[in-house]
Amino acid sequence: MAPSNDELTRTVQGLLTRVQQLEDRLEIQQLQSRYIHYLFKQRFDRIVDECFAKRLPDVSVEFSDSGVYRGLDSVRALYRSFDVTKTIPGFFILHMAVNPVIEFAADGLSARSHWLSPGAAGSDRSASWIWGTFYIDYVKEDGRWLIAHSNLVPVFRNRYETSWAQAPDHGTVRGVLSAPPDEPITLYKPYNEAKKQCDMFKDHPDLPRPAAKR
Amino acid sequence: MAPSNDELTRTVQGLLTRVQQLEDRLEIQQLQSRYIHYLFKQRFDRIVDECFAKRLPDVSVEFSDSGVYRGLDSVRALYRSFDVTKTIPGFFILHMAVNPVIEFAADGLSARSHWLSPGAAGSDRSASWIWGTFYIDYVKEDGRWLIAHSNLVPVFRNRYETSWAQAPDHGTVRGVLSAPPDEPITLYKPYNEAKKQCDMFKDHPDLPRPAAKR
Amino acid sequence: MAPSNDELTRTVQGLLTRVQQLEDRLEIQQLQSRYIHYLFKQRFDRIVDECFAKRLPDVSVEFSDSGVYRGLDSVRALYRSFDVTKTIPGFFILHMAVNPVIEFAADGLSARSHWLSPGAAGSDRSASWIWGTFYIDYVKEDGRWLIAHSNLVPVFRNRYETSWAQAPDHGTVRGVLSAPPDEPITLYKPYNEAKKQCDMFKDHPDLPRPAAKR
Repeated sequence: MAPSNDELTRTVQGLLTRVQQLEDRLEIQQLQSRYIHYLFKQRFDRIVDECFAKRLPDVSVEFSDSGVYRGLDSVRALYRSFDVTKTIPGFFILHMAVNPVIEFAADGLSARSHWLSPGAAGSDRSASWIWGTFYIDYVKEDGRWLIAHSNLVPVFRNRYETSWAQAPDHGTVRGVLSAPPDEPITLYKPYNEAKKQCDMFKDHPDLPRPAAKR
Repeated sequence: MAPSNDELTRTVQGLLTRVQQLEDRLEIQQLQSRYIHYLFKQRFDRIVDECFAKRLPDVSVEFSDSGVYRGLDSVRALYRSFDVTKTIPGFFILHMAVNPVIEFAADGLSARSHWLSPGAAGSDRSASWIWGTFYIDYVKEDGRWLIAHSNLVPVFRNRYETSWAQAPDHGTVRGVLSAPPDEPITLYKPYNEAKKQCDMFKDHPDLPRPAAKR
Repeated sequence: MAPSNDELTRTVQGLLTRVQQLEDRLEIQQLQSRYIHYLFKQRFDRIVDECFAKRLPDVSVEFSDSGVYRGLDSVRALYRSFDVTKTIPGFFILHMAVNPVIEFAADGLSARSHWLSPGAAGSDRSASWIWGTFYIDYVKEDGRWLIAHSNLVPVFRNRYETSWAQAPDHGTVRGVLSAPPDEPITLYKPYNEAKKQCDMFKDHPDLPRPAAKR
């Protein structure tokens, strides 16, 4: 027997919610990829407009020992200051982001995520491996997912010539960037220091867990 | 002309199946990522409860030259034995999993998959690259996807100082783990041996193929 | 109040479109993964049949300094010529593909994409890192997504012993392959040359942007 119109309506309402959730997940994945491609290809002028939240007072970015850039003006100044890398021959920064664990708030308007990041950076004179974790929050503004908070916390960032275990230091991102951060480093420790600890990640945030069902 | 209620019902039934399949695929991807993050962050106590099948008598894990841990008790003992790594300064194991090919059984309750794994491991004294393939089966228990069988088969696991081609050996995972495996190694060969062969992967399993339509 | 049958029909039509788009995106991701696994495992005979468009006169493949293989016959000849690698002990080519940005044409029958590729290659005598970008177009033939055009453009492909910054050359893919390309190299430059430039990627294609809504 065919279900009543009411039953069918309820089923379709359920599908609308589930399809929205699938779209949200894939849209966030593509947003994150878009950010990474722009960074790698030095399209810094596109990053804030296309990838970051505009109406979140505490929007933020942090990576390695950068400190925290907080607020839209600081985030814009940061990516503007990356433009100087276009004057460095052979410059690239390649931070991939894989294995996302993304969990949504109950209202479906924000999400927390952890990613893993294999990566490399270079210029005509130097080559480094940069591998670690991305901790990223997203928010939906006007129906569009954007980055709310991003923190890239490398486990190692050693020069190619010396392994992460042997490297006496793991460099700094502070040399190139003129824009000053607003707050100190939160999580990152260079591996030459971190490696003295056991259970190195014990102060890192817990993997996001599912919210109660929307 | 609007379709009849019967036609609409059939269309909605079709959508329910298709949405379920999309959810299954993304849930498996997130499950696999969750496992990898827990392993990397040394949250070993969460791995079995959150990631492994509980009602499958032959649930199993294997990685590199570990041999096969078979049955829930052995799998639990294995991840418990990983706890010793929390006493090794600077210890980490980072096995990412990308490029999944996931195919579902016709009943939608199990799936086979192949993934590729870039990875690294280290401690305060040593650094290694570990890259290869994950062969993983999943099963749905009480509506939730879990790992049924997992085998990480590295193509290389060389110390940083010497390339995979030059490394005289590719190490072992047996040093650290006290829990004994139940069965011998199935597929893994260290690259210093495997590299003598042509068509090295000829004994590896075929990529999963789509089942007849559910 | 329950919606009218007409309203419900419109909602269901909308869902059909959205679910199709989700399936398209995940099918392309799996197709790309399938290609990569076949290449890695040296199942070259499966690549063209399972992964490439059959009815596109200008179907094409390019990688590093290969030049462009154009047309189905050339693409088949290329992958047939890869068979010689089965006679090289320890041979493997591992080009992963992550962080896809995939955008569909308005008619939903073709798509453009950019991916990032961590990778490695080796034989019993040599080991190299090959990292860069995949530019790939897809087309739907008989309801099935296939590769229309693929170009792997490494940023570096240095031998393990010398970093990308220090390597005096970045090798060639021309040594092994007997099948001749149809057209010259389009984008690839070895990093020992590219690194002399600033803003190295300025001639690379722009990230695909969303089409007007289907």
